[in-house]
Amino acid sequence: MDTAPPLSPTARSTVRRGAPRARTDRAELYAVLDAGLVGHLGIVLGGAPVVLPTGYGRRGDTLYLHGSTGAATLRAAAAGAPVCFTVTHLDGVVYARSAFHHSVNYRCAVVHGAARAVTDPGERLLGLEALTEHLAPGSWTATRQPTRKELAATALLSLDLAEASVKVRTGPPVDDEEDLAAPVWAGVLPLRTVLGEPEPCPLLPEGTPVPDRVLTRSV
Amino acid sequence: MDTAPPLSPTARSTVRRGAPRARTDRAELYAVLDAGLVGHLGIVLGGAPVVLPTGYGRRGDTLYLHGSTGAATLRAAAAGAPVCFTVTHLDGVVYARSAFHHSVNYRCAVVHGAARAVTDPGERLLGLEALTEHLAPGSWTATRQPTRKELAATALLSLDLAEASVKVRTGPPVDDEEDLAAPVWAGVLPLRTVLGEPEPCPLLPEGTPVPDRVLTRSV
Repeated sequence: MDTAPPLSPTARSTVRRGAPRARTDRAELYAVLDAGLVGHLGIVLGGAPVVLPTGYGRRGDTLYLHGSTGAATLRAAAAGAPVCFTVTHLDGVVYARSAFHHSVNYRCAVVHGAARAVTDPGERLLGLEALTEHLAPGSWTATRQPTRKELAATALLSLDLAEASVKVRTGPPVDDEEDLAAPVWAGVLPLRTVLGEPEPCPLLPEGTPVPDRVLTRSV
Repeated sequence: MDTAPPLSPTARSTVRRGAPRARTDRAELYAVLDAGLVGHLGIVLGGAPVVLPTGYGRRGDTLYLHGSTGAATLRAAAAGAPVCFTVTHLDGVVYARSAFHHSVNYRCAVVHGAARAVTDPGERLLGLEALTEHLAPGSWTATRQPTRKELAATALLSLDLAEASVKVRTGPPVDDEEDLAAPVWAGVLPLRTVLGEPEPCPLLPEGTPVPDRVLTRSV
């Protein structure tokens, strides 16, 4: 229950483009974003926040987000409302000698800004390619490209990474000195995401081989 | 890139207490919430959304959230501002025969409401117990209880589950009829979270055994 904001980071870096530690911090930001598959997009609708899981892709300092043109959140974001996009990885449960100092190890990137609706046809294709390749590397060229109708049904937003921060907590629990002698186990139980065996679509012709882009991908 | 909102659910249930499907939907909502370790709390600060990963615990139809009393987001939430709390599990990457129909399998619970600052000492202990036990089952009784000072530093909020919805996508890709003959692999690459080997705190006396509460826990 360690209550330093929001998840008891022992290391924190705020990343702003152009700041002294920019290069290192950018690398850290990219690493956290690139390692995720889905982020949580926050937007204000009618005065109240809405937080929804959202796919994304990155090209340089631009995040691309997409969804249905019918989604109210995306319409509001496309109209220039401020958004917050957060990607979190849980790396472990931190067991402490006190209930209070229990925590989690994690990496988290938080991006603030106003999203922009991407309307240029060329940028739309690049953004959708980034999204597809982020989710399923190799799929953009290996599968059918979007039709005009599909493109029309897709809202594509871009979000600049100018205002972004990364927080990371790693390592063992930080217990109070007077608790260290307690006969209580303390440490970290690591968490990680793994891939299972590919499950072919039932409509696939028998014997269709699983391609390398699926077999060799990692998460 | 399947763009039905927000992540191409093939099944969707909106859960409101008292509705006809309430019992079943409640079970589904509880299951999604109880299977997560961290959710994403959205709140409006200065007109802009802020989305931060946040620990939680559940008792019946009440979620408990906590953080530092110094965190601006928690202070705003404790003052009655509307919040959105979202818990998402990624279950698989869905490879389709077209870029457009790529998707993810997932389970997602979204809770809307106004949080309440928990001030009653008895409820505060129950809430913190729920939080600790959610993160680390068995830890509440096995470790040192919170001191008065620790309690004073902890903001504890409750959020009613009256307004909550669950979305789930499962199964293979949903491709267009005319793409089915394409010589492109399609299917699902399952994702799951696994636990690693416990990593003892370096300050632990040699030979301290790893307790069952750690060895036998699951995620």
